[in-house]
Order: sequence, then C-alpha cells, then structure tokens
Amino acid sequence: MSEMKRPDVVGIGQCSYDILGRLQSFPQADQKTDLDEILLQGGGPIATALVTLSRFGTSTAFCGAVGDDEFGRKIEAGLRDEQVDCSGLKVEPGAASQTAFIAVDKDGLRTVFCHPGTTTPLEPKDLDHVLIRRSKILLLDGTHVEVACEAARIARANSVVTVLDGGSVRPGSAELLPLIDHLVVSEKFVGQLSPGKSPQDVSAHLLEYGATTAVVTCGAKGVWAQQRGDSLFHQSAFPVPVVDTTGCGDVFHGGYVYGLLQGWPLADIVRFASVCAALKARQLGGRSGIPNIDEVNSCPGSSCKCNFAGVV
Amino acid sequence: MSEMKRPDVVGIGQCSYDILGRLQSFPQADQKTDLDEILLQGGGPIATALVTLSRFGTSTAFCGAVGDDEFGRKIEAGLRDEQVDCSGLKVEPGAASQTAFIAVDKDGLRTVFCHPGTTTPLEPKDLDHVLIRRSKILLLDGTHVEVACEAARIARANSVVTVLDGGSVRPGSAELLPLIDHLVVSEKFVGQLSPGKSPQDVSAHLLEYGATTAVVTCGAKGVWAQQRGDSLFHQSAFPVPVVDTTGCGDVFHGGYVYGLLQGWPLADIVRFASVCAALKARQLGGRSGIPNIDEVNSCPGSSCKCNFAGVV
Repeated sequence: MSEMKRPDVVGIGQCSYDILGRLQSFPQADQKTDLDEILLQGGGPIATALVTLSRFGTSTAFCGAVGDDEFGRKIEAGLRDEQVDCSGLKVEPGAASQTAFIAVDKDGLRTVFCHPGTTTPLEPKDLDHVLIRRSKILLLDGTHVEVACEAARIARANSVVTVLDGGSVRPGSAELLPLIDHLVVSEKFVGQLSPGKSPQDVSAHLLEYGATTAVVTCGAKGVWAQQRGDSLFHQSAFPVPVVDTTGCGDVFHGGYVYGLLQGWPLADIVRFASVCAALKARQLGGRSGIPNIDEVNSCPGSSCKCNFAGVV
Repeated sequence: MSEMKRPDVVGIGQCSYDILGRLQSFPQADQKTDLDEILLQGGGPIATALVTLSRFGTSTAFCGAVGDDEFGRKIEAGLRDEQVDCSGLKVEPGAASQTAFIAVDKDGLRTVFCHPGTTTPLEPKDLDHVLIRRSKILLLDGTHVEVACEAARIARANSVVTVLDGGSVRPGSAELLPLIDHLVVSEKFVGQLSPGKSPQDVSAHLLEYGATTAVVTCGAKGVWAQQRGDSLFHQSAFPVPVVDTTGCGDVFHGGYVYGLLQGWPLADIVRFASVCAALKARQLGGRSGIPNIDEVNSCPGSSCKCNFAGVV
C-alpha cells in the first residue's frame, strides 16, 4: 500500500490483456480478412470497473493475479497508469496472464478468443485484511473464490458494502452469494442460476440470498433493478451509436459503485451506470471510451434526466 | 551496415508482427471461444525467409518498413535477434506496423485477421545500392514495387540472382516479373496471372517472362518446378503431423534460396525447401518451427532421399 493508504473501493477478480481488432464482417474459417484498426489495452471486469472509478476520482485498489510475462507487465502498467493501487496484484512466476483477441464488426458484434491464462487463484495468505477493513466498498466477480468469500466476510464484519459483478455462475457462487449486499448480475448469470425465468421475474429470487439490492443487466434491453422492500423497476439503455460493447458491463459496475459511494437512490445509481456504459460503447476497447464525469453529465441523454451535476 | 559488410542474401518486402492463437475449432460470429495457447512473434514472407536462412548460417539483410510503434520495435528486435541485418529497415514516424491475429484450429486450418499497417512503401532514395551489388541473391515479394524493380535492375547488372516469392499478383508485378531469375510463386499467384490454367500448365507461361526457373507451390499438394530447357517435375509435400502452416511458404523460400547458394540442382533445391517447409508445420507460429540444418538432414524423410549432408 505505497500509493494510497485507504482506497475507497477494493476489487478482487479478473484482469486481462485485450487485443481488439475492428473489421467489417466476421470471416468464415480458413479465410483472410483485413482489420481496419488494432488496439491493445488492459481489460477484465473488475480491473476495468476500477479504472472507471479511478477516472471519476475514486481511490481504488485491485487484487488479482497475472503471470510474469509481457501481458502481465502490460496489465499492471495499465492499472498503475490509471492510479489503481496494485499492491494486491500477485505476479506468478512462470504463469501466463489472461489474454483475449476480440474481433468487433461494423455492427458492434463481438467474437472473443480468450486465453484464460495459467495463473492460480489467490490464496487466503495473499489477502490484505487491513485493505478490506478500511475500504468502503468491496467489488467481486466470483473468481479467486476462496479469497473472495474471506474478503466478503471481513467486509461484512466491518460495514464494508459488498457488490458482485456476476457474469456467469462459477464454482463457489453458492457460498459467495449470501455474503453480497448488491447483486449486480448479467442476464446470462440469472439464466444459469434460475433457468427458464426472465430477468424481471428473478430479482425476488436474487434478494432471497440476503442482498439488499438485485440488479440484472440485459445489454441493449436495459436493466431491471429492485431494492428489498421496494418495487422492481426497469431502466432503458441509452441509445448511442455503438462501436464496441467490450467493457460496457464493467463500466456499468464502475458507475454503479460510484453512485453507491455518493449515497444516491437506486434509480439514480442505475441511470448513472447506464449512461456510463452507453458512452463507453462509442469507442473500440474496454477502456478507451470510459467517460469522465463531465461527459456523463453533458451526455445527450441529459434531457432524459441523466444530468447528475445536481446530485453530485 | 554495422553488423556485417556483405550479406549473401538481401530481402526486400513485408514484415509483420503475428499474434497466433491455437484453438479447437473456429467460432461463429458473436461467440466466445477459448484459446489453448497464444504466441507472439515476427512474421512476413521475406522476413521469415531471411530468418530461415540466418538459422542455416547464411548472412542476410532485410529492407522494409515498420511504424515507430510497439509492433515495429518487436519486428525489428525479432530480426536482430536472428542476426538479420536491419540497416535497411525504415522506421516511419507515426505509422502503424503490419500486424495479424492468426487463429489456428486443431486441424491446422488458419483464419487470418490482418491489419496491413499504414507504412508507405520504400522509395528509391531508401535503397542501399552497395548492399544489393555485393550480395549473391536478392529476394523479393513484389511489395515496395518501385524499389523492388530498382533493386532487381541493380542485381541484374551485377550478376546477383533474383528470386520472387509471389504470393499474389500486385500492382507493378508486370514490370517486376521480367527482372526475376527464379519465379517461386504460389498456386494463388498463378491463378491470378493465368486464370483457368492448372499449376502444371503454367510453368511454361512463367518462363516466358524471362526467368530461368519457374516453381509453383501448392501447399499439401506439393510443388511443380521447371528449369528453362528442362522438363516440368513434381515434388510431393513431406507428410508431417501439421500443427500450423503459418510461414511454411516463407520457410520454403528460405530453403530454396539456401539451396541456390549451395549450387544444388533444382530437384535437390526443391526437395530441400519442401522438407524445410514441412518441418516448420510441426509447431505454432511462422518461426518457432523453422528447422536447423541437422533437423533437415535427420528428418524422417531421409529415406525419401532428403538427406543433404553429402550435398552440403
């Protein structure tokens, strides 16, 4: 913890190095196709959510694992450049870092080639308890599950709010879910958790795990959200010219956590996060398009009550 | 020309930085698929042919262009590490280097996403005439066409043998073809040059451009070759367990030029080059699998008369 003593948000989870290629249309196997653009940058749900928060002026720390390879060095440099504290980033000798090639066509359709890397999950000994205790919000994605559960228990015992970015149900999710205050999960996650149920039907089921808030993100179809004791509501996605949806979910989570830190009502938090995610989609890459606060406040949707200047 | 004063082989052409991903089967658009392995290394027909020659102990120099970006630095480092002279490599400020993502499935089927880069072709002022005059063989791929033609004319005037690696017919090919001694071209090239003609029918047509030798490479279907005044013959491809055919053509050209330098008969040159190309296919990436001379000589095909120990 050299850079900052008390980050407001600690994230534990995945980080990746992304190679993004923009093309007209996705090829058939055995063909050759030209890329109009190629872009390299760090990615991963938790890492990119923290970068979003950092750009909004929030102090953040990341806990995760990379290999001692070139990709790992780039992942770490990408986070440090964004003022994300990396004292909890474990560099594993001989391991390969997570990497992805993401082909994005002219309609924003994404095809992902992911090398999951060979790092081993963080172990309890890797966890800095003081870091968690002194934070305000703990953001998890369900990876490094043993450490994630341990961190969530420490959070619970120290009034640190826990948020889960649930992309897909993973081994250990059953143990983790009851430790989460805000379940902010994808349509895919609820499809795996409660097969056959629609996103709007599942929020009550999510709240049964003990969370105060259940949010289901459905991409262009918007977001369903419900606070315990309140009614379910829907937030539409903000219409933008979509170049690339890589990282939109991650940026949503960054915006969501930012809203929580401000103490906003859930409806405002979800609207703010939706604007953040929509603005991201205007550019290639998970991080290039992350808006700053001014951009969010001056977004074309301000006529849709998404001006947060007064709220902030 | 700091590293070596008189490289035996000068190559002018493309260089690329390749990102290779090995996977089980190529995905449909909009899917996510796991990569079993990811590998980064330099590529490009002429650059990889020179690396092959360099591993065989031949002195080489490369002339081409990269941007002043990370990929360009890696391309140059990859060549220098292989003892390829890079004094003729132009680094263009602000330009993007050529890059490719190559997905290779379990059957060796390749799907290529190529960013051609934004470098401009070499200009006549970039050409080191002394470098060409003092070499023994000039290897071209038809790119940088103005400089390629100029270099071929200098070669012609100085008894330097010219070899074309013709992958596809390009603007300026008509001017370049009559300046070439050895037309070593792909099935695709002859299909573009003489539509409707089979590779074995086209060699006479190729020789009409003035070359002494015409060779048509047909991948797994082997090679057709003819020397002026001799008959056409076929060389089968050597059977190997194919992991990745990336660079096989480039390595064939490296082996071909090596054989020329040794003064071997055409049939031996083509057989040697075929063994080199086949051995390359055993590994992922254009360069990882390039054999050394001992490997070529001890290859399982030695019973097929591909032992060159006596010849060398």
